[in-house]
Amino acid sequence: MASQRPALRFLAHCKPSSRRRIPTSPSACHRPFSSSAANPARSPAPFARYVSLTALSLLVAVPLFFKIAVDEPMKLDELTLAERDLKTKMAQGVTDMSPMRLRMEKFIREQQKDIVQALEAIDGSGFRIDEWQRKEGGGGTTCVLQDGNVFEKAGVGISLVYGTLPKAAILKMRANHKNIVEGEAIPESLEFFAAGLSLICHPKNPMAPTVHLNYRYFETANPDGSSGAWWFGGGSDLTPNYLFDDDAILFHKSLKDACDAHNKDYFPKFKKWCDEYFVNKHRNESRGIGGIFFDDLDEATQDKESIFAFIQDSLKTFVPTYSTIMNRRKDMPFTEKEKEWQQIRRGKYVEFNLVHDRGTAFGLNTPGARVESILMSMPLTASWRYMYEPEPGSREERLVDVLREPKEWV
Amino acid sequence: MASQRPALRFLAHCKPSSRRRIPTSPSACHRPFSSSAANPARSPAPFARYVSLTALSLLVAVPLFFKIAVDEPMKLDELTLAERDLKTKMAQGVTDMSPMRLRMEKFIREQQKDIVQALEAIDGSGFRIDEWQRKEGGGGTTCVLQDGNVFEKAGVGISLVYGTLPKAAILKMRANHKNIVEGEAIPESLEFFAAGLSLICHPKNPMAPTVHLNYRYFETANPDGSSGAWWFGGGSDLTPNYLFDDDAILFHKSLKDACDAHNKDYFPKFKKWCDEYFVNKHRNESRGIGGIFFDDLDEATQDKESIFAFIQDSLKTFVPTYSTIMNRRKDMPFTEKEKEWQQIRRGKYVEFNLVHDRGTAFGLNTPGARVESILMSMPLTASWRYMYEPEPGSREERLVDVLREPKEWV
Repeated sequence: MASQRPALRFLAHCKPSSRRRIPTSPSACHRPFSSSAANPARSPAPFARYVSLTALSLLVAVPLFFKIAVDEPMKLDELTLAERDLKTKMAQGVTDMSPMRLRMEKFIREQQKDIVQALEAIDGSGFRIDEWQRKEGGGGTTCVLQDGNVFEKAGVGISLVYGTLPKAAILKMRANHKNIVEGEAIPESLEFFAAGLSLICHPKNPMAPTVHLNYRYFETANPDGSSGAWWFGGGSDLTPNYLFDDDAILFHKSLKDACDAHNKDYFPKFKKWCDEYFVNKHRNESRGIGGIFFDDLDEATQDKESIFAFIQDSLKTFVPTYSTIMNRRKDMPFTEKEKEWQQIRRGKYVEFNLVHDRGTAFGLNTPGARVESILMSMPLTASWRYMYEPEPGSREERLVDVLREPKEWV
Repeated sequence: MASQRPALRFLAHCKPSSRRRIPTSPSACHRPFSSSAANPARSPAPFARYVSLTALSLLVAVPLFFKIAVDEPMKLDELTLAERDLKTKMAQGVTDMSPMRLRMEKFIREQQKDIVQALEAIDGSGFRIDEWQRKEGGGGTTCVLQDGNVFEKAGVGISLVYGTLPKAAILKMRANHKNIVEGEAIPESLEFFAAGLSLICHPKNPMAPTVHLNYRYFETANPDGSSGAWWFGGGSDLTPNYLFDDDAILFHKSLKDACDAHNKDYFPKFKKWCDEYFVNKHRNESRGIGGIFFDDLDEATQDKESIFAFIQDSLKTFVPTYSTIMNRRKDMPFTEKEKEWQQIRRGKYVEFNLVHDRGTAFGLNTPGARVESILMSMPLTASWRYMYEPEPGSREERLVDVLREPKEWV
């Protein structure tokens, strides 16, 4: 298939060796976002970005036409999904009428910017921003604040992947998503798009909780270019070292409110799913005090617009909720012993992420994946003490009791 | 099968719910070994141990005979492997004529004691010693020195497991070990014995290297009680934060000498195996500077006595070699920046152990496994810095170069 569409391959990319990458911006650049706390350079406006993409296209015009001349006739109708989307964005921008791929990309890009600004406002120092592309297709933007005033490490990353699913993967996905293919014939391959925003914050103060969130969208393209199967996944969970009921209630309540506004079944179902997923099975202990987790939300759940509206509202609870919790906890006094306990909890966080988390395992096993973006979730520091047990009746023991038996907070 | 042999089940264990455990000593006890640096209490002599096992048997005599009376007739000829071995040890002790199971157990118990004493002599503080039993069968002794004078953490553990392999596992093992069953008929289950000694030392001084070793023996029993398939595995590898060629050469040379004395093919083969196994594939970087690694050494390699002799010589290189290296490095001056580099290397050690190490994965997925013994390999402290790269031309960079392209040290 590759040799049938030399033209648009080059329209989209400047390196002849690369295929099906989504062009985000020309190579790595630093600090496109910023808040008052950081460098005042601004991210290029959408218009400016399309201008720069056009410039990029012009830069490759000569090799492109050479390629067309020596290779084979240009077939403008045989575009990859990435090439189609680029063309649409350049011609029309992104509106409510655009394909969900483009709307999800726009939404997570905006959210990444807002979250980075909110976390910079809490910390008083700035994020490092890396834009990257994956040789095999796709790319993203990874923002990391490390060893700040308030955060040991905070990472906010987005990734946008255009790729091809082999037959084996299609068959596997069909178990959960019947409409991935129409009729009985399974094609040899299907183009897909995946977009996601991931976030993790490890505060310095042991009284302040670690938080994680991830929202994602997946879609396949039918051979005629129309959208095939699609689904959303996501969730957010809180991992305190010390339990503050107020924080736990606020965190769960804000997610419950976002869920309830869309579907009364969501919160009980997604809260349970979260309690069952984020578990260090080898220790019979939850990673944290939960939140919500869900996957495979498709037309069997609700229509696409309704689910996208829920995804947006749910993700948008993060900034106000976590800012409130951080403002309560970031300057609390703590002892050396409490810091040590935080470090031990961090060790167990690492265990979950490296041993049990399916997303991390998938990432580390994906050839050409950007390991530093996947492992931005690792804390700056962690500790393992052999046979460390909290004292009976202590606040540390109270946390472990809740981790062994998840609570209903709202 | 369980209900056919109530008698010896109780002879071996005091808790009626437990089956096929190897009795080591009554429950958890601390400090059976010690060196001049630590508590002077001594480990019980073999004779004393058998006396205490006899005492244990007497303690369970009443429930045993009650059990026999109400259950079914005692069938002394239907002993489990564990029960047979206990009976042999009690009657005859362990000699060169004993089954390999008992000789390997005796050897690793002695080695554990010697290594613990040697490490205590280096550190000047003592190990905590925990004896444990696994509900599903087996047990071990875990010795950990934590936050000492020289070692951040050092763990020396042995485990001895008697269990039953289901048919699926037998079929899988037959791929490498044809003689696991005689003829074509695969039995529904086979009794097995596994024994191993594992060691890991994480020194405080960043100039001193982390070391790991593991030696193990596996055997199945034929239905008539004779030994079926058997094999040895093992190896040892060094993980410095800073390269000292002298240390690397000494470490590799002592292993090479031990290999060469038994088989000239061993070292080149086992060195390569080590370089291929201890790799953080997701970073395309070795964990350390290698050593030797091997598995499945059986009669296709050499006869059992020859391999056991090699295992013993190879393991015995550890104390003199590592003591020499530690005496060179443990008191060297270092900077804060060098300590930071050590912590980053520790993070990558954790990544290997949790993501790639087959032994750790097997352990964490084994129901009822003692997690604290499996994870004694975790460092006391570790760090993850996003996008940390050593400076060009630095000693840190030299290490990474060697980790990307393993060297021949001897």
